[in-house]
Amino acid sequence: MKTLTIVKIGGNVIDDQKSLNKFISDFSKLKGAKILVHGGGKLATQLSQQLGIETKMIDGRRITDSETLKITTMVYAGWINKSITAQLNSKKTKAVGLCGADVTLIPATKRKSKSINYGFVGDIIENKINTVFISSLINQNIVPVIAPITSGYNGQLYNTNADTVTSGLATALSKIYKVKIIYCFEKNGVLNGKKVISKLNAPLYAELKQNKIIINGMIPKLDNAFNALKKGVHSVVIGNSKQLQKLNQNGGTNISIK
Amino acid sequence: MKTLTIVKIGGNVIDDQKSLNKFISDFSKLKGAKILVHGGGKLATQLSQQLGIETKMIDGRRITDSETLKITTMVYAGWINKSITAQLNSKKTKAVGLCGADVTLIPATKRKSKSINYGFVGDIIENKINTVFISSLINQNIVPVIAPITSGYNGQLYNTNADTVTSGLATALSKIYKVKIIYCFEKNGVLNGKKVISKLNAPLYAELKQNKIIINGMIPKLDNAFNALKKGVHSVVIGNSKQLQKLNQNGGTNISIK
Repeated sequence: MKTLTIVKIGGNVIDDQKSLNKFISDFSKLKGAKILVHGGGKLATQLSQQLGIETKMIDGRRITDSETLKITTMVYAGWINKSITAQLNSKKTKAVGLCGADVTLIPATKRKSKSINYGFVGDIIENKINTVFISSLINQNIVPVIAPITSGYNGQLYNTNADTVTSGLATALSKIYKVKIIYCFEKNGVLNGKKVISKLNAPLYAELKQNKIIINGMIPKLDNAFNALKKGVHSVVIGNSKQLQKLNQNGGTNISIK
Repeated sequence: MKTLTIVKIGGNVIDDQKSLNKFISDFSKLKGAKILVHGGGKLATQLSQQLGIETKMIDGRRITDSETLKITTMVYAGWINKSITAQLNSKKTKAVGLCGADVTLIPATKRKSKSINYGFVGDIIENKINTVFISSLINQNIVPVIAPITSGYNGQLYNTNADTVTSGLATALSKIYKVKIIYCFEKNGVLNGKKVISKLNAPLYAELKQNKIIINGMIPKLDNAFNALKKGVHSVVIGNSKQLQKLNQNGGTNISIK
């Protein structure tokens, strides 16, 4: 099986032009088949504020009304996606900017919840991800750059968490590729105090959660990671976007089930 | 040679949800290989106004400063592009939303002018259009939906006129396909008074321009059309977006050199 590296970046890289430039340069040098999934950053929130649209969050998830959907689609699938794509192409990495709506790459359904109306938030239909299209791009040495906007079979666009998009894509593609996920964020890895945990398996994760060493936003991130591994993804690394090359050589925190 | 139909729509369709829905339905029924190029519409201008950014126009062309570039990229390549793409996919037309920056599909250079600084406006490098990538999509029965944002080899995004993107793409692709362009707008064709001119050739065009029957925004549109024909495009039709099927059967105004 051919190795495929899926790298996910979030707001900390995207919001800072210098960090983003360095990341793009590092990513362009990464060998082999690869995909970049990016989140949003502060621009969507800023734009919402400028337009007087209130950003609503519940449990760290954005509540997406129709105006917010428009803004996230514009910012994520428009400005951020195409800026990164153009930059990659300028570095001789053939890149194409996509979102989950393209060729219904990542079909989704509106999130159902009895207690909360999340609005236009989509839950991925994982077994319907269009791996054929992704493979055809990879076979042409083209790097998909993917914004976390998905769509329903009815043509409705949805906002979807970028970590979930990453693990969904990784899981679906692990039937064809030996998939490695690199989750980039602002820290050097999953921390125990100030120290990076270099290897995190399921029992240690359970223990550190119980002892409140791993808390808050780190939990859905790691749940995603463990889920992906359970579903066939070969390896998952979490670490600092400034050290992409190092993360690709097993720096940061390496996640494993056992 | 295989026939390829390139349809261009502008603001009049995009600004009206009902017209857009009908158009998307008609476009999805169009037989054979096809591409959709879309312009912007009022949303970019509205958004600029809401954000207090002044829209500057010279000779019907938008002057694009960095803030305006961000807005047009968000609106054209983000919201409009992905909304249309998701809708087409819901109608069983496999569509992918792209702009000229993707796989450097439509490379461009910053417009140079001694008298006017157009800002981030790109002029297409026609002989460098990535026809290989477009062909690979068409061979997979995928319909490219293209927003008029282009990019330089340095990674800079540019705003480019959608008619020019259409004729540029058409010209480049005419080396591989028998290309038909359908320019859709709000009128039933090129008008002489209230009557649609069903056939417009170069001598008649010259005459009608001289007699001030064809004026203003129609001139760059027709110049584009004649240029495309001179450069190898098989046929060009101009007419009403509400009558796509009819335009595809030689309704509207049919442009020819002789």
